[in-house]
Amino acid sequence: MNKSISVAVIGASGYTGLELLKILINHPVFTITYVATSEGGVMLDTLHPALKDVLTCHVEKADISQIAACCDLVFLALPHQASMGFVKALLPLGIKVVDLSADYRLERETYEQYYCPHEDAKHLDYAVYGLPELYRDTIKTASLVANPGCYPTAVILGLVPFLPFIDEQFPLFIDAKSGVSGAGKTCSPTTHFIGINENIFAYKVLSHRHEPEIKEKLRLQSGITFDVNFVPHLIPATRGELIDAYMLLKQEIDPIDVLKAYYKDEPFVRIFDAPVNIKSCAGTNFCDVYAQRKGNKLYVNSSVDNILRGSSSQAVANANLMMGLDEALALPTIAYVP
Amino acid sequence: MNKSISVAVIGASGYTGLELLKILINHPVFTITYVATSEGGVMLDTLHPALKDVLTCHVEKADISQIAACCDLVFLALPHQASMGFVKALLPLGIKVVDLSADYRLERETYEQYYCPHEDAKHLDYAVYGLPELYRDTIKTASLVANPGCYPTAVILGLVPFLPFIDEQFPLFIDAKSGVSGAGKTCSPTTHFIGINENIFAYKVLSHRHEPEIKEKLRLQSGITFDVNFVPHLIPATRGELIDAYMLLKQEIDPIDVLKAYYKDEPFVRIFDAPVNIKSCAGTNFCDVYAQRKGNKLYVNSSVDNILRGSSSQAVANANLMMGLDEALALPTIAYVP
Amino acid sequence: MNKSISVAVIGASGYTGLELLKILINHPVFTITYVATSEGGVMLDTLHPALKDVLTCHVEKADISQIAACCDLVFLALPHQASMGFVKALLPLGIKVVDLSADYRLERETYEQYYCPHEDAKHLDYAVYGLPELYRDTIKTASLVANPGCYPTAVILGLVPFLPFIDEQFPLFIDAKSGVSGAGKTCSPTTHFIGINENIFAYKVLSHRHEPEIKEKLRLQSGITFDVNFVPHLIPATRGELIDAYMLLKQEIDPIDVLKAYYKDEPFVRIFDAPVNIKSCAGTNFCDVYAQRKGNKLYVNSSVDNILRGSSSQAVANANLMMGLDEALALPTIAYVP
Amino acid sequence: MNKSISVAVIGASGYTGLELLKILINHPVFTITYVATSEGGVMLDTLHPALKDVLTCHVEKADISQIAACCDLVFLALPHQASMGFVKALLPLGIKVVDLSADYRLERETYEQYYCPHEDAKHLDYAVYGLPELYRDTIKTASLVANPGCYPTAVILGLVPFLPFIDEQFPLFIDAKSGVSGAGKTCSPTTHFIGINENIFAYKVLSHRHEPEIKEKLRLQSGITFDVNFVPHLIPATRGELIDAYMLLKQEIDPIDVLKAYYKDEPFVRIFDAPVNIKSCAGTNFCDVYAQRKGNKLYVNSSVDNILRGSSSQAVANANLMMGLDEALALPTIAYVP
Repeated sequence: MNKSISVAVIGASGYTGLELLKILINHPVFTITYVATSEGGVMLDTLHPALKDVLTCHVEKADISQIAACCDLVFLALPHQASMGFVKALLPLGIKVVDLSADYRLERETYEQYYCPHEDAKHLDYAVYGLPELYRDTIKTASLVANPGCYPTAVILGLVPFLPFIDEQFPLFIDAKSGVSGAGKTCSPTTHFIGINENIFAYKVLSHRHEPEIKEKLRLQSGITFDVNFVPHLIPATRGELIDAYMLLKQEIDPIDVLKAYYKDEPFVRIFDAPVNIKSCAGTNFCDVYAQRKGNKLYVNSSVDNILRGSSSQAVANANLMMGLDEALALPTIAYVP
Repeated sequence: MNKSISVAVIGASGYTGLELLKILINHPVFTITYVATSEGGVMLDTLHPALKDVLTCHVEKADISQIAACCDLVFLALPHQASMGFVKALLPLGIKVVDLSADYRLERETYEQYYCPHEDAKHLDYAVYGLPELYRDTIKTASLVANPGCYPTAVILGLVPFLPFIDEQFPLFIDAKSGVSGAGKTCSPTTHFIGINENIFAYKVLSHRHEPEIKEKLRLQSGITFDVNFVPHLIPATRGELIDAYMLLKQEIDPIDVLKAYYKDEPFVRIFDAPVNIKSCAGTNFCDVYAQRKGNKLYVNSSVDNILRGSSSQAVANANLMMGLDEALALPTIAYVP
Repeated sequence: MNKSISVAVIGASGYTGLELLKILINHPVFTITYVATSEGGVMLDTLHPALKDVLTCHVEKADISQIAACCDLVFLALPHQASMGFVKALLPLGIKVVDLSADYRLERETYEQYYCPHEDAKHLDYAVYGLPELYRDTIKTASLVANPGCYPTAVILGLVPFLPFIDEQFPLFIDAKSGVSGAGKTCSPTTHFIGINENIFAYKVLSHRHEPEIKEKLRLQSGITFDVNFVPHLIPATRGELIDAYMLLKQEIDPIDVLKAYYKDEPFVRIFDAPVNIKSCAGTNFCDVYAQRKGNKLYVNSSVDNILRGSSSQAVANANLMMGLDEALALPTIAYVP
Repeated sequence: MNKSISVAVIGASGYTGLELLKILINHPVFTITYVATSEGGVMLDTLHPALKDVLTCHVEKADISQIAACCDLVFLALPHQASMGFVKALLPLGIKVVDLSADYRLERETYEQYYCPHEDAKHLDYAVYGLPELYRDTIKTASLVANPGCYPTAVILGLVPFLPFIDEQFPLFIDAKSGVSGAGKTCSPTTHFIGINENIFAYKVLSHRHEPEIKEKLRLQSGITFDVNFVPHLIPATRGELIDAYMLLKQEIDPIDVLKAYYKDEPFVRIFDAPVNIKSCAGTNFCDVYAQRKGNKLYVNSSVDNILRGSSSQAVANANLMMGLDEALALPTIAYVP
């Protein structure tokens, strides 16, 4: 097996672009042949000094024909709406795409309600939602994979084993906590050290765009339109995401048994017998899950690294599958602890 | 007005003892005449170097007869069960007590189920729950005040205005987040910097002792036994506590209007038009509250400084009321921001 | 004593402006009669939500004639160069000024070398350097006080007792560490949470503008031009500043004895027998100092709250002196610990 | 190349033991055949939950004959003094040892002055100091390597290129800053979150045991006994170590040129043109170095991950060399940023 597949990272300046590069550097089959940002014209270790002497390359201004000339697969680590333009141009050229933005994650109507008009309805129909535990087989044959949002990844992996047992007459309440990398590299009062250090607060209460994504995917799995209520928080940590979900059951179950049975063959979901934390999976592709029942109430508690399992390492898992490789290739499993 | 009332702080080594001293130093009427720990025999600025040149005094080994000889009112900042012994001895001597432990907060049966056998049932009947917004008039004539738990303070102040509107057929889910000072000064893997920094996790899921405290007080206010489900988390911050509560309504309300009407004359509850955070009230006696409705779902979001409003400054408020003083005397209102 | 002296805070949006307001709210003599920023047109608790229900006032666009109409003394919490314009206009109107910027701290030649051309040379000659321990008597009669820089405050208070003993043939090396509030409220990659959390780095190595300020003041005290070498660092903390200074001695001394003798009557300098930390004085006007000798090497270790003793509380101390009041009025002495 | 060399990790419960395991899991030649602590009797993922489903093995109570039966090389991640006992027993059995403690780092006289009586003088003479940039060739043939202290690693790598140019008539002042993992896993007021969060302080001022280690190694390199003055600090970060060293030069040099020339063939030392930070090398085996000259003053600034380059990854580098492998095998080069 040699490094025979050429890949591009478009959007290399942000955190998810950096994480993609960090994984791909050691990938046994993928070779990074093109790295771009919207502006280009800079050396990579100027953007990311930590990569000095590790990966030396020029960052280009993203150009379709250059990409087409040198890549088999492209990772788009771009803002929503920006991605569409690239997908529209790349797919007809036979290049496979893993899109880390929201552009191909949702049904058109939902997308347009929460984001903006969709300019590539044609490919939207072909996009596969890149959550391997649910869509592995379809991903293998896809040419366009929509990489899930960070919160939906952790929420859906936590909830999906319980879908047959949840009482849909009652709302689901999902209280989520994310490290600051989830807010991106943009400097703002929210991401200013003084704003979030020694602090915690909810934001976009019951109006975050990941709420409809969660709702849609749970419906597609179960046929049931659950009443999903989602409240995310920012916490004073760099990476990691914790989910606490509250709901009612329509029958008695042992939640740990349900989890262990559902995920018994899955290498990247770990079931814990005690509440999970973000540090034990930060730096990895794992989703850690715990659950507890009290009478007819169910508490589900899951955790991911928001920019790995919640973005870049999951994107590489999808790319592995799309290229006929072992899903686990190069995926990080060793946490950053301590 | 001179510093004519003598007070003692028993349990001066912990965080709540320190916070009591910090408030009392500048109190215009109370004089600190006695400071004790379980061991004594040390100078105060050895225990708390930050008090060097600010409050110089010897820390005694707590002794009932010494306390009785020099104090009008005693603050007990002791672990539960330790408090009872002092209360039993001090009350008959005519000394008023604000007890920061859990010993006199609950009805006997509930207390014994969650803590230990109660050895002072006699005074338990006389104890007043020290949440001024609910029990101000009774506190004024009390000789024993049970200072509320930190989580119950923030939860109850957030929920109590909505009690007439909450649908009691459905559970309440309360997701709480506390700074590390809530875990106390004891060194453990949980409070080790490496254990909690860059981390967050739930603990005592659906089994924390503050759950029955919340349930009992809500019942006493409303006559209704709500199904309270409480999940606390530890966050990588020093002080502050954030509450996110989820429930169903049985009628349409404007939650901000409800809050503003309920608290219109209360100086230490602030109603915000956006989600609250812990930093804006850390260092103060305020409880900050926000709420939002979506259909029949109600989201309530409150915040306190866990060792001030959630403990020591509320204790001083109670002491002020018990001694016939203005409740607001010496209570901190200026947050530690930035 | 009533609140009979009217003061203005110009530059209320930044951290030092906020700290000024926090102190002045409880000042027994000063009344805040005017609060301004460069833009105005906003309520104060919009700028600083933590002040909600604590200080409610309109923030003006700074205007000389309005200030003159309602103030006895003005605090200028403005960037350097902006301050000059106000000082030039206010002093001739008989209004006293405490300037928190660098504009009047340095001799003209030094100022112009490190900052910009000086446009108010006239008043520069009258400005007094507002370090009370060194210039208390002069401050009392000054109409313009230049509030010292944060680093110079901590460095000078640490070093000045040792000036007679330091070997001026050798350089002084000063390694300083500051919390992020020292970098101001401006959002930048440096102040982004991800940039500084779990990080530490030196900046402006041997070229920070506080280096000439330290050098000039040490020379004015001793007549000796020391070779001052200053390297500041940013640390992942909100407030506080730690100084570690290294130098040679020309005679044997007991450094703790020297410190205790020098500061025996100073209420806001505390001498410790062990290394100081930033937490014990954060929130106060104290400067904490420790020193240790090894042969002919001297190590001096001092700490201040960079936005209080290093800025706003020292500014209030100066204002107190200028108005004939007790220097200590309203100055914070109780640290934010825990 | 198969995983043909068997290695043991003795002392698996601490941070450096964990880091060893994290590196060895993916080592292409070394196989972990024995994992032990002083107590044993536990599963590894109970000690380190982050390793769940990654490395499943039983942790033994360390036993010499068991080690001898299954290992070619042993990593001792034990406290000083404990290591000697194992070394004494293992070396005669032909087992190679990388000792992460201080037991074999120093000349006997120095060791006994700063630590305790040495009980294995015989092997002390054969031990090689495991800093590959200085002792690579000797390490290759060593059977016992003393892995350097974390501070000495960063200090020596920063200073050694300048040894010919430093004025030995003048002291060297070294101001160091370490993340909390350097203080180990033991719970204490110092490592309590409240003790170090939002704080920084010096400790063991001019008396840390790494001072003589630095001094001895600089002397062995240069023949000069420098006057080394070392002041370490604890900072509120998990991992990473920053060194700021101050000294005088006896001739004019361009420090960046000196560094680049000295380290031109070294893969694990990176020379930066601006001050280094701890985040860019945290998670890696790199030592990052910067230096700046001002007249005859030299400032040297270096950074390592204290538990990787400062301990465990350097230990693996040494083991690679001792076993005739490529030094770089399995050493981490990709930082944990963001």
